[in-house]
Amino acid sequence: MEHNLEHTISLLTRTPAALDALLRDLPETWTFRNEGEKSWSAFDVVGHLIHGERTDWMPRARMVLQSGETQTFESFDRWGPVRESEGKSLGQLLDEFARLRAENLGELRALNLRPEDLERRGRHPALGVVTLSELLATWAAHDLTHLHQISRVMAHQYREAVGPWSAYLGVLQCAGHSSP
Amino acid sequence: MEHNLEHTISLLTRTPAALDALLRDLPETWTFRNEGEKSWSAFDVVGHLIHGERTDWMPRARMVLQSGETQTFESFDRWGPVRESEGKSLGQLLDEFARLRAENLGELRALNLRPEDLERRGRHPALGVVTLSELLATWAAHDLTHLHQISRVMAHQYREAVGPWSAYLGVLQCAGHSSP
Repeated sequence: MEHNLEHTISLLTRTPAALDALLRDLPETWTFRNEGEKSWSAFDVVGHLIHGERTDWMPRARMVLQSGETQTFESFDRWGPVRESEGKSLGQLLDEFARLRAENLGELRALNLRPEDLERRGRHPALGVVTLSELLATWAAHDLTHLHQISRVMAHQYREAVGPWSAYLGVLQCAGHSSP
Repeated sequence: MEHNLEHTISLLTRTPAALDALLRDLPETWTFRNEGEKSWSAFDVVGHLIHGERTDWMPRARMVLQSGETQTFESFDRWGPVRESEGKSLGQLLDEFARLRAENLGELRALNLRPEDLERRGRHPALGVVTLSELLATWAAHDLTHLHQISRVMAHQYREAVGPWSAYLGVLQCAGHSSP
C-alpha cells in the first residue's frame, strides 16, 4: 500500500479519541502499571505521544520543507515525556494530546502538500536521508505501535488472572518489540 | 494483580467505544486489508468479537453457574464470524458489538456475583477445569489481544510507506502471536 496523505490524516485524527475512550477514568491498576523495571505504563505512553506532538513530527516536517537535507533532525528525547508528565492526571494528558494533535493536523492541512512536496528529503540523525512522505507515514504507524504497546501492557496486568487461557491469548506471548 | 471484577467490567465497557473511535469511517485501506492469506482484517476482528458476545463469554458464565464442571463448554467456532459478517458494513458491526456488549454487561451486573461465585468451576473442552474468575478475566484480556492484533494489522499496511523507520517501529517486528 502506497502512502496516501488523506489516509494518514484520517488515522492521526482518530487516535486521541480512541485512547480517550479506552483509558479515561479506567482504574489505575490498568493505566499506571507497567511491565516491570523501566518499562512504560499506558500513562507513560500518552506522555510520550504528547512529546512527539511537541518536538518530533511537525517540527521535522517543517525542517524538511525549509532546509531539506542540509539540516539534521534533532534526536528525540525518549525520557523527556516522563519528566513532563509528573504531577499530571491521565485525563489532563489525554486532553493535552487531543489539543496538540488537532493543532498539528490543522497546520499540516494548511500546508496543502502536493505529491512532489511529499518526495522532498530530510536528514535523520541515525537513518540518514528520508522523505517527507516517510516521515508522515511513520507518524501514523507510530500511533499504532503505541496502541499495540498499550494493549500489551494492560493485558500483562491479567497474566495470572486468566489462568490456563494465557496460552490462547496472543498478546501475552508478545515479548514487546516496541521501544523503549 | 489479582482479578478484580469491577476492573474487568470497566475495561469491557470501554472497548466498543474505543474501537468505534478508531475505526468508524476510516478508509477501507485501513480496515479491510489483512496481513495476507487467511489472516484477519480489522473488519474481521470486529466480527469475531461479536461472535464472542453471542456464543462465548456469557453463555459459558451461565453454564458454570448452572452446571459447574459437569458440562463442557461448546467449542468456539473461529470462522463463524466471517460468515455472519458478510454483506454488512463496518459501521453496522460496530453498532452490533456495542449493543451486544452492553446487554451482556447488564446481565453480568445483574448476577451480583460474590467472591465465592467467582471461584466456581467449569470445564473447557481443551483446557480442562477453569474458574468463573478466569473466564471473566479472559473476556477482558481477549479484548486487549484483539486491539493488539488490529494495531498490528493496520500498521502492516504502511510497512513500505514508512521507509527506513520500519526498524524503529515495534509493531512491525511483531510476528503476530494472536490467533488466528
